[in-house]
Amino acid sequence: MMEQIEGGITAVDGFMAAGTFAGIKKVEKPDLALIFSETVCNVAGVFTRNRFKAAPLLLDRKHLRKKRGRAILANSGNANAFTGARGDRDAEAMAEAAARALTVPIESVYVASTGVIGEFLPIEKITGAVPRLASQLSQGGGRAAAEAIMTTDTFPKEIALVGQVGREAARVGGMAKGSGMIHPKMATMLAFLATDAAIQPRLLQEALRQAVDRSFNCITVDGDTSTNDMVLCFANGQRGKEIRSKGGAYSQFVSLLEAACLSLAKMIVRDGEGATKQVQINVTGGRNDSAARRVAESIARSNLVKTAFFGQDANWGRIVAAIGNAGVPVDPDHIDLVFGPVALVRKGVYQGKEAESRVATLLKQREIELTIDLRSGKGQATFWTSDLSLGYIKINAAYRT
Amino acid sequence: MMEQIEGGITAVDGFMAAGTFAGIKKVEKPDLALIFSETVCNVAGVFTRNRFKAAPLLLDRKHLRKKRGRAILANSGNANAFTGARGDRDAEAMAEAAARALTVPIESVYVASTGVIGEFLPIEKITGAVPRLASQLSQGGGRAAAEAIMTTDTFPKEIALVGQVGREAARVGGMAKGSGMIHPKMATMLAFLATDAAIQPRLLQEALRQAVDRSFNCITVDGDTSTNDMVLCFANGQRGKEIRSKGGAYSQFVSLLEAACLSLAKMIVRDGEGATKQVQINVTGGRNDSAARRVAESIARSNLVKTAFFGQDANWGRIVAAIGNAGVPVDPDHIDLVFGPVALVRKGVYQGKEAESRVATLLKQREIELTIDLRSGKGQATFWTSDLSLGYIKINAAYRT
Repeated sequence: MMEQIEGGITAVDGFMAAGTFAGIKKVEKPDLALIFSETVCNVAGVFTRNRFKAAPLLLDRKHLRKKRGRAILANSGNANAFTGARGDRDAEAMAEAAARALTVPIESVYVASTGVIGEFLPIEKITGAVPRLASQLSQGGGRAAAEAIMTTDTFPKEIALVGQVGREAARVGGMAKGSGMIHPKMATMLAFLATDAAIQPRLLQEALRQAVDRSFNCITVDGDTSTNDMVLCFANGQRGKEIRSKGGAYSQFVSLLEAACLSLAKMIVRDGEGATKQVQINVTGGRNDSAARRVAESIARSNLVKTAFFGQDANWGRIVAAIGNAGVPVDPDHIDLVFGPVALVRKGVYQGKEAESRVATLLKQREIELTIDLRSGKGQATFWTSDLSLGYIKINAAYRT
Repeated sequence: MMEQIEGGITAVDGFMAAGTFAGIKKVEKPDLALIFSETVCNVAGVFTRNRFKAAPLLLDRKHLRKKRGRAILANSGNANAFTGARGDRDAEAMAEAAARALTVPIESVYVASTGVIGEFLPIEKITGAVPRLASQLSQGGGRAAAEAIMTTDTFPKEIALVGQVGREAARVGGMAKGSGMIHPKMATMLAFLATDAAIQPRLLQEALRQAVDRSFNCITVDGDTSTNDMVLCFANGQRGKEIRSKGGAYSQFVSLLEAACLSLAKMIVRDGEGATKQVQINVTGGRNDSAARRVAESIARSNLVKTAFFGQDANWGRIVAAIGNAGVPVDPDHIDLVFGPVALVRKGVYQGKEAESRVATLLKQREIELTIDLRSGKGQATFWTSDLSLGYIKINAAYRT
C-alpha cells in the first residue's frame, strides 16, 4: 500500500533544498543544487559502471565509507570529469564549501557534477555561491534543486511516495536528471533520494542496489553509460524502529524505494532526447530472470527496433532478430510477441495482416507496451526504452552548426 | 605482395556466375544469383551468431559437413527466416532446383536468402527461374550475381586480388552485400568468396574464420546481427600444391583472403544506410589484442560517438566515455586520442582549442581515422564504423509514411 504525494525530495520531513544560478552554465539557468538533512542520515550510493569515474564520484565513494551524511551539493553545466588532480581538488573544494556553510564535517557532504567533460570547474563561482545557496534552503526547495541539476532535460523530475513500513507510514522523496547526452555537455543520470524510514546502513545499501537494479538499470535511452552516473539515498531514521533484518518492514521499504526509483526512471525515458515514444518491454517465460532480462535489454537497445518505433512500424522481424541477439537460448517456434493486447506472433506464427494493422494503430500512441513470452521457463523482466528519432540525431549532431 | 585485379568472384578461373530477376522483389531488379564452380571445391563457411538462424543457414550447415561444394544459389527480396518447416522445405527446394539444373549432387549446393522476414518464399518463381539462370552462367557474370544479392545496398560490392601463395600466384575473388536494414526487408551481411588456391578443408575453415574475424567482424553499421548473415568460401584447388600445414603458404593465403574480406567489409561500411562518414578506429597499447578490440568495438558501436561524427564534432568526451564503457581496465591519465595526425588528448590531457579546430577540419572529410593509445601494453585492434545520420533514421523509420 503506497500512494503518491505532492513534491519531491523535500516532501520528506527533515530535508531542505535549494537551487540557484552560480554562473557555470552559459545561459542564466539554475546550475547549483543543495540538499540538506537537519539530522545525520544513513547514506547509500550506487555509482556508474563506466571505468572512468569522474572526480565527484571518487570523493563520494570515499565519504561513503562512513555510511553517514548530511548534504549533497550538485552542479550542472560541467561534469568535472577527465580533469585529473585539479578535478579532485575541485570536488573537495565543493564539499568543503558546503561543509563550512552548513557547519557539518566535510565527510558528510556528497558532491555531484553533470555537464561539459574535460573542462575545469569554475570553482570560485561555485564556492562563492554556496553560502547564499545555504541561506536559501527550505522545505519547499525540492523543485528548485531538481531544476538546478537539469541539463538537456525538458522538465524537472520529482517524486514523493508514502507507504507503510513496519508500523509507520514512511516517506520516500526524490529527484533525478536524464541520461540523454549533448556535446559539449556529457549529460548524466543523477538521482537523489531521501527517506524518513529508519534502516541500517548495510540494509539501506542493499535496498538501494536492488531498487536501482529494477529501475534505473532497466531503462535505456542510447545505451551509453556516463562517467558521472550516480544514485544517492539518505535515510534520516525519523520514522519507526530501525530496520535491522530482512523481514516484512524491509520488504515494504524496498518496494517503496523501488517505486520511487521506477517513477523517476520512467520520467527519464519519457524525456529521452528526441523521444516521441515510451516503450515498456515485458519479457516472460525466460529460463530464469537473468535470461529474460538479457532478452528485454537486447530489444530495448536495438537501434533498428527503436527506429521502427519512431516510424510506428510493427517491425517484428527486427524484434525477433534482437531476441536472437541476446545470447540466450530461445526457440523461435515457441515465441509470443504481443503489442498491448494484440498478439502479432503466437508460438512463432505470424498472426496476419489484420493483427498487424491493429498493432499499427497501437503504435501511434505515445506509450507502447510490448510483451514477449519465451515459453521456456518462469523468468521475467521489464525494460523501458525510448524510440530513436530524427530529433535524437539533430540534438546530438547539429548543435554546433 | 598482392595486387587488385578487375572483377569479382568470377575473376578466379573455374568460377562462373549469373544474376536475374525471378520476381521475388516487388520492383523489377535482379533478385536471384547463381555461382558455379566447374570442379568440386573445398568449402568453408561462417554463420551468424544470432540464435535464430534462418532456414538456408541450417541447410548450409548440413551441407558443410562434407566440406565440399559446387554452387551457391542466393536470392534477395525474402530472407526465408522465421518460416518454420515450410521454410526448411523451401531452402531445400532451392538447392534441389540448382542441383538439377547443374547436374550436381544436392549436398554440393549452398543457398542464401536476404530480404523480408517471416514471409514464405515464392518458391515456384525461384525454382522456375533456376534453369534459365543456369543457362546464363558465364565467366563475366560476377557483377550480375553481385547485383542480384543487393537489398538496400546502393552499389554492388566486388573484389578480386592476386598474390603469391607458395610458389604460385593465387587469386581470391568475392562479392558481398551490406548490413544496413530496412523493413520489411531485414537485410543481411552476405559474402561469397572463391579462390583457386589449393588448401585442405580444415585449414580453409580456419583461414576463413580468421579472415572474417579481422574484417566482417570488425565493422559495425548499427550493431545488430541478422538471422541470415553468412560468409562462404569455395577453393577449387587449381593453383599450386595443396596447403596442408600452417607454413608460409598458409600465412600468405590467409593474408590474401583477409585482404579480400577487408575490402568488402569496408565497402559495406561505406554503403551503411544513411552513412556520410567512414571511420577507422585504431586502438593500440591495450593490455592484449582482446582488450584493444573491446575498446575499439565500444567506440564503434556508441550511438553518441557515431552521431558526433555525423555532426563533424570533435566530441572527445563521448569517445572517452565509450572507452570507459568497454569493460576493460584503462587509466584515463595515460590515454592518447589522435584524429588523423592531430593529437586531441595526450596522456590524458586535452590539447586545447587549436588542436580541436584542426580536428574539426579533419572531421569534414568523408574518411576519418581515429587512433587511441591506451599505453598499457602491446595489444591492438582496428574497427570500422559509419556515422549515425538523419538519413539512417529516415531510411529505417519513414519508409511506410
